[in-house]
Formats: sequence, structure tokens, C-alpha cells
Amino acid sequence: MRNIKLILEYDGTNYAGWQVQPNGTSIQEVVQKAIAEITGEPDVRLVGSGRTDAGVHAAGQVAHFKTATNIPAADLVHAINTKLPEDIAVLEAEDVPDDFHARYSARSKTYRYTILNAPVRHPLERRRACLVRTPLDLAAMRRAAAALVGTHDFAAFQSKPQGKSSVRTITRLDIVADWPRIEVWISADGFLYNMVRAIAGTLIEVGLRKTPPDAVATLLESRDRAAAGPTAPPQGLCLMGVEY
Amino acid sequence: MRNIKLILEYDGTNYAGWQVQPNGTSIQEVVQKAIAEITGEPDVRLVGSGRTDAGVHAAGQVAHFKTATNIPAADLVHAINTKLPEDIAVLEAEDVPDDFHARYSARSKTYRYTILNAPVRHPLERRRACLVRTPLDLAAMRRAAAALVGTHDFAAFQSKPQGKSSVRTITRLDIVADWPRIEVWISADGFLYNMVRAIAGTLIEVGLRKTPPDAVATLLESRDRAAAGPTAPPQGLCLMGVEY
Repeated sequence: MRNIKLILEYDGTNYAGWQVQPNGTSIQEVVQKAIAEITGEPDVRLVGSGRTDAGVHAAGQVAHFKTATNIPAADLVHAINTKLPEDIAVLEAEDVPDDFHARYSARSKTYRYTILNAPVRHPLERRRACLVRTPLDLAAMRRAAAALVGTHDFAAFQSKPQGKSSVRTITRLDIVADWPRIEVWISADGFLYNMVRAIAGTLIEVGLRKTPPDAVATLLESRDRAAAGPTAPPQGLCLMGVEY
Repeated sequence: MRNIKLILEYDGTNYAGWQVQPNGTSIQEVVQKAIAEITGEPDVRLVGSGRTDAGVHAAGQVAHFKTATNIPAADLVHAINTKLPEDIAVLEAEDVPDDFHARYSARSKTYRYTILNAPVRHPLERRRACLVRTPLDLAAMRRAAAALVGTHDFAAFQSKPQGKSSVRTITRLDIVADWPRIEVWISADGFLYNMVRAIAGTLIEVGLRKTPPDAVATLLESRDRAAAGPTAPPQGLCLMGVEY
């Protein structure tokens, strides 16, 4: 059997998220079905690097599947894309060693959270940014972000505790302004459930001067989800890439 | 009566264009209806700076309407927006002199045509860019663009001759690359029907080396629509602003 690695882009607006589930259509099942049609292997199983929630986008989701097809990897890209709807596409496909696993082999992931900081809503940005009408204090947001970089217990930024360790290492947390767009770029060795959206929601509260930047370190130590800011809405979030 | 100038943004994907027409919903009628609800004046008439075609977007369409309402202009923005769907919004409203006319007072307009130059389709860009899979020769496109700047008879770039003069003045025609996005920015004192999309289609042919850049001057002189390139698809086009 060959092991194929895919890089995928999708507009998550109309999906119930990455993972197959009883209610709503998942991206995983749509792509799995497209692969099955091309390879003629109905039981193909596509393993993603991790879940993305309902409404969350990806410009660099990674997944793998095992197949006996002899279609070359480069041809698989175009063949699978003909079976996919316009809001999902395979960007790249390549043969990888048998032990490559999209989830377990991942060393780090990078997400971007986009805020549109404007007094009125902008229809052209509505599907990919979270509108914040009040001007944000970027210097305060950057001070707060600095307190989160490094290895910490991020329990305060986790929506549903999974029972395992909530210690993660954030290697990058940058706030890039291209007014009226503000992008929060975050890389880590792993993310807890809703962690990026909880961090984005907290940074927005700091930017609105509802939370002082110095409070973020204390909040982190509290390990209390109620102490941090709200979970920012899904449409601002995009999985940009997975590093192996 | 007051005269109110509006700046509008819209995602044109789901509309039959700006202008009220028998088939399909127009942006003009949706905004007119929202204004009528807010002012209580059912016969309000909204005059745009010009038409945008089905599927074309705007980040800076301008329109005006006459009203007897005493709602301050700044409050009109938010009031009208509450009555508009999520793909249309008023960005600004202001009182202007009685003789201001969104169409006749316009001195120039600026459009942006976005090409996504990538070997595979990108779902996150599908509503706002035209996909061109073959790498484009930007230097050739820029040489061709230079031949179009200035005052010329643009009959070769007009889909439906309107009987009047087809002489226009292009003051800016820049090709801005932010790979894989390529943006064609074009400003002129006025545009013929489908002129920007015909220019974009011709520049793409030059970029694909199907038309030599030097042929564009000859093509312009021919005044023959069949000599120029095809009309590029609507989703790449966005009206960026109108100057008065």
C-alpha cells in the first residue's frame, strides 16, 4: 500500500467542521468520498492533522490515506479536485514513507486569526474575519501576547478539558496589522480544544482595554477558563499549515 | 430635501448586478428598499455612479438619494445596515450639495481586477479572483498595459457599443503582484461596457504569451472587439472607488 500526504484548502463556512459526525456535512467525509471515487476503494480512511471546528477555514490542512492505486501523486491532485465541491480543494499530494501520520508526526501547527477592526461591517470580509468595531490597542495586545509565548499550562484557554496534559509550547504569537485587518499568527507544538479562539478572544479584550495586558500572566496561572476572554467566532480562524 | 451620498460595499456573487432589472435581484433595489424602510419614503430613488455587472463586487460604490428625513447622516449608516443582508453594507453617509450627482459628478473611477495565478484552484479565493493556471509573464503584461494608458478610442474593449463616443482616458493601469495574487488596478475618467474585463482578458492573453505585448497598440487602433482578448469573468472585478 502507498501512503499519500495531501495538503488541503477549504472554506469552512458551509461545513460542520473537519471531522465526520452525525449532524451536518464534514470536510473529512466529502474528501474521503472524492478519493474513493477516484481510487475505486470505498473504504479509504482519510486522517487529518487535527479537527477544525464548524465554520473554521484551512489554507494548509494536512491529511494522509493508504491506497493501492497506481495513479501518480501529481495526477491525484487534479483527479480528486474534479470530484470536490468549489469550497474544498487539494493543493498538493505526495507519496510519503509508510510511517508518516498526519496527526502523530506533526511537530507544530500554525493558525491565523483575522480581526476586521472597523466601525462598520464589510461584506467582502464577512466570511473570513471577526468584526471588532472599537479601535484596538495593538501595543497592549502585543504585550499580552508576549506573556503567552513559551511552555505553559494553557488550561485557562481550553473549552473542553480532554483529561490529558494541557501543557503546550507556543513558539510564535505575532500580531500583524494591515488596517483595517489585524492578524494574530500563532504557532505551537499542539493546541487544546478552542485554544486559538480563546487566545484571540482574550487578546481582543486586552485590545479593548477591558483586561490589562499584565493580567494575562495571572490568568494563565489560574488555569481557569472562566478567567480568560470569550471564544472568538469561527470565521476569523484559518489553519495555515502543519510542520513535520 | 436633503441630498445624501452613500459609499457602499457589496459581495456581488448572489446578485444580478447593480441595476434594477426584471430577472434576478439587484443591489440597487435591495438598498433602495432598506432606505425606504428607514426613512418611511417608499418612492426613494437611489442613483449609483454606474452599473456593476452580475457577480462583480464593490468596495467603494457611490450612490445618492434625496430625502426629507431628519435622521443625521452618521446614524443613517447604522440604521440602513440593520435592514441590509450580510453581503451588502453602507460604509459612509454624508450630506452633499443639492447638485451632487453620483453618476454625472464623477471625475474618475478605480477598479481592481484580481487574478489568482496558481496551478490549482484555491477555495478561499474563488469568489474574488479569476484562476489562471499557467504562470503569467508580468513584464509582458506591464509593457502591454503601458500602451493603454492615456486618451484613446477604446472601441476594441467595449462589449455593447452605446452609440456615443468610445474615447476614454486611462490615468493608471498598474499590475501589482503579491503571488499568487496578481492585481490589475485601473483608473479612468469613465469606462465603456465590460471595458475593464476586456482589458483584463487581453492582459491575461499577453501574460500567457498568446498575444505579443506590442500587438496591443495595433489592436487598440483596430477598434475591433474581436481583435482584443476575451472578457475576463466577473468574480475578479471590484469597483474600488469613485473620485469627484
